[in-house]
Amino acid sequence: MRSIDLNCDVGESFGAWSMGDDFAVLAHVSSINIACGFHAGDPQTMRRTVAQAVKLGVAIGAHPGLPDKVGFGRRELAISPADLYADTLYQIGALAAFVHAAGAQLRHVKAHGALYHMLEKQPALCDAFLAASKDFDPKIKVFGLSGGNLVRCAEKLGMACAHEVFADRQYESDRSLTPRHIEGAVHRSSDRQCQQLTQILQFNQVRTRQGQDIDIKADTVCLHGDSPNAAISAKALREAIEAAGFEIAASHNELGKP
Amino acid sequence: MRSIDLNCDVGESFGAWSMGDDFAVLAHVSSINIACGFHAGDPQTMRRTVAQAVKLGVAIGAHPGLPDKVGFGRRELAISPADLYADTLYQIGALAAFVHAAGAQLRHVKAHGALYHMLEKQPALCDAFLAASKDFDPKIKVFGLSGGNLVRCAEKLGMACAHEVFADRQYESDRSLTPRHIEGAVHRSSDRQCQQLTQILQFNQVRTRQGQDIDIKADTVCLHGDSPNAAISAKALREAIEAAGFEIAASHNELGKP
Amino acid sequence: MRSIDLNCDVGESFGAWSMGDDFAVLAHVSSINIACGFHAGDPQTMRRTVAQAVKLGVAIGAHPGLPDKVGFGRRELAISPADLYADTLYQIGALAAFVHAAGAQLRHVKAHGALYHMLEKQPALCDAFLAASKDFDPKIKVFGLSGGNLVRCAEKLGMACAHEVFADRQYESDRSLTPRHIEGAVHRSSDRQCQQLTQILQFNQVRTRQGQDIDIKADTVCLHGDSPNAAISAKALREAIEAAGFEIAASHNELGKP
Amino acid sequence: MRSIDLNCDVGESFGAWSMGDDFAVLAHVSSINIACGFHAGDPQTMRRTVAQAVKLGVAIGAHPGLPDKVGFGRRELAISPADLYADTLYQIGALAAFVHAAGAQLRHVKAHGALYHMLEKQPALCDAFLAASKDFDPKIKVFGLSGGNLVRCAEKLGMACAHEVFADRQYESDRSLTPRHIEGAVHRSSDRQCQQLTQILQFNQVRTRQGQDIDIKADTVCLHGDSPNAAISAKALREAIEAAGFEIAASHNELGKP
Repeated sequence: MRSIDLNCDVGESFGAWSMGDDFAVLAHVSSINIACGFHAGDPQTMRRTVAQAVKLGVAIGAHPGLPDKVGFGRRELAISPADLYADTLYQIGALAAFVHAAGAQLRHVKAHGALYHMLEKQPALCDAFLAASKDFDPKIKVFGLSGGNLVRCAEKLGMACAHEVFADRQYESDRSLTPRHIEGAVHRSSDRQCQQLTQILQFNQVRTRQGQDIDIKADTVCLHGDSPNAAISAKALREAIEAAGFEIAASHNELGKP
Repeated sequence: MRSIDLNCDVGESFGAWSMGDDFAVLAHVSSINIACGFHAGDPQTMRRTVAQAVKLGVAIGAHPGLPDKVGFGRRELAISPADLYADTLYQIGALAAFVHAAGAQLRHVKAHGALYHMLEKQPALCDAFLAASKDFDPKIKVFGLSGGNLVRCAEKLGMACAHEVFADRQYESDRSLTPRHIEGAVHRSSDRQCQQLTQILQFNQVRTRQGQDIDIKADTVCLHGDSPNAAISAKALREAIEAAGFEIAASHNELGKP
Repeated sequence: MRSIDLNCDVGESFGAWSMGDDFAVLAHVSSINIACGFHAGDPQTMRRTVAQAVKLGVAIGAHPGLPDKVGFGRRELAISPADLYADTLYQIGALAAFVHAAGAQLRHVKAHGALYHMLEKQPALCDAFLAASKDFDPKIKVFGLSGGNLVRCAEKLGMACAHEVFADRQYESDRSLTPRHIEGAVHRSSDRQCQQLTQILQFNQVRTRQGQDIDIKADTVCLHGDSPNAAISAKALREAIEAAGFEIAASHNELGKP
Repeated sequence: MRSIDLNCDVGESFGAWSMGDDFAVLAHVSSINIACGFHAGDPQTMRRTVAQAVKLGVAIGAHPGLPDKVGFGRRELAISPADLYADTLYQIGALAAFVHAAGAQLRHVKAHGALYHMLEKQPALCDAFLAASKDFDPKIKVFGLSGGNLVRCAEKLGMACAHEVFADRQYESDRSLTPRHIEGAVHRSSDRQCQQLTQILQFNQVRTRQGQDIDIKADTVCLHGDSPNAAISAKALREAIEAAGFEIAASHNELGKP
């Protein structure tokens, strides 16, 4: 049976403010990306999220973001490559301490929000992000936009990586995501999400906004945990994945299962 | 020849703001405690400070503080033990990532500012701080006030620890430091500092504000790097230490030299 | 008809994180206290909250807190009187700019969280808080614990003040609130809250944890807006207030109605 | 005798970190722009800086910046116009509280760092910044790049404004400042600065990097206070201004002198 990873951004609460229904989501996914305190998250939330993930055997990744809490890391910032290297290494290290203290291994790293897209467009930032990840652990897996710049560069460096696809986002013909301000950028209906995901899993293709079917590689599927009914979406996606003949599992790397 | 460790708090710059003359100080000490971004320091400063320390072979420790940048970690905060555990583990992990990326080992941990004193007075916080340190690495060495609560508790847990003494601070008869608001709490003259340190090294005693000579154990001597002439003080203390027949060296632990 | 003010802490969202159901609560109260960006709130949230309050004719006050976002201003901090003065004036000024831009007047100031209680216990902080409030506007009204230190000092300075009572908190015989860690500190049932409030309004007395009925003055009643069913509580309290023969209205001061 | 304003960015210390020699600089300038706590400054620093300026009769302006302390407001951030409006109003209000408490008037507003340049290039941000300034006080004066977008828009809105020129920055033929990464962008020699300023004052022209003499209007001259020898530069510029037959004075507006 073929397998596919289902990942979700979690640990995005901050102090007294909660976000997402992490405990419900964690039951449905195989991998999580935990916020590291720059755009969201705080040490206590990180500790608690790691503990729950370890209990459920979910693969844990770091989810570093830009240093902009009030903007939730969604605003592009003209950060230098040198500063991005340092910010990334700092965040990965902070999260890894909780993971190791809980007896598990940090398996992957995925950039958050504006940074995710900046890495696709700015080569020097892409290099800095990968250098920080690799300097932390040469065997860490990098999650990035399927077919995009980050995963290509990671592969060139000999790093493990996962091509990430989205069930709920419209694609452009150049394989980028349709910008959110364009009508139809987000598939809100669960049916539409399941339909897109099924096409990806069965045919390794996705229909773009322009109406083309383009090739797309899928190692991991992103579930958005901050939408109001993330747990319901998660259940529907699970069923679509299973109906397509896949099992949901974090991919192995040299570190073995968490 | 007997040896004694000379340690200094460094990496206390923040963004565009610089503090201390770290590069001058690093040439004189055997151990440094690097701020981890909560009360001072930022990822870029941490990276740069670690790189310089590795180059000079100085033993590197984490210097976690309270989350209060504008107060420089000098204001007591009613933090819960659970939050202190998480804040400490976060800071140690973040710094350790830079140390490991530079090919070195994190050797010790020392609390900063108000936290240093809170650990002496509040047993639940002391336990939380030690738990975070031990969960990060059971072999990490804990620096704490000589003869104080933290080092006693660390020893009970089987952790390595270093009794820290001060050349420039007046002692009370209960072995605590004279609070800064009391006249004479800080020895400003270099002569007075060297005299106190010599007494400690040669006789394992210190004369208190009350005029008593009390026993005191010295594994490491704290040099304050943020005073205007830290590099000059460092040089004078070095000479006093050598005149007392000691060499300056970080104590070994199971990790070996950095 | 006698009148009583009903106030609520609002504007406690932060960036992408929301807290409380401010729009529902605003329909039920006569005064609000808006967080000013130190313990909660951000400029955009402040602007939006002010706009809604002005639309509904609710009296607007500033709700300054300690500079501790991750702790939500609930952790005591050893802040100096000079720093508290500056932090308070800064926060009042920032909020007032939004109020004035919306064509209204800032009517009152109320300390948040740990600071509320520190002002009762630490005279120098109480003086600093009042000095900042008065330096901002000598006619601003100060909200404080009924019969407590802050309102007494405000009265001595000739400042307008409002004695604040709580429907949902147990009282001690010294008129302080029962600390939250003690069983029964918070009245969770709406019936119990209405019963306590009715006793206060009709008899100017409250039954303490020790079983005594003590005198208490009520100018304003605090409604907690961050509890899950704040809007339901608000409705029940409104009805109890009206049943006791009071109308709900912000008290006038020299500035007139907002 | 003709007069020209000499302004300087001050109040850029933060907590325990100091920056610039504000007290020395304040003796030489007629206007200051005080950081408001987002990119630099803190409430205590603001209070202290305002007190000194009031004592010396220097005209006080707000110096709002992007919310990025570690980047000192020098990194462009993709902030929305709505958020910039709120951030600007917040910062102006916070500073104005200190100015009013000290018995003075807030006279002007000038954007800091990356924001200064973003306002020239992004019309929606320019509008938001002006709207916040005008909503705070329709008579406030706006400082902006001489002949640039901000001052043109301010004039269209009927706002008072000051065309700002730089003695120490090279100009391009389109009247923008030569970007810092280009060789020769900053005139480091005091002679070169005085020469450029003299040309501006006497002929209302400046020689660009391309060798052209272009027309330029000068209402206020910017002195950079964070350079190591700001006080020395200030003295030299003063002398050049006086030699050109000008006196240094803040321009009057409807509020009268501070």
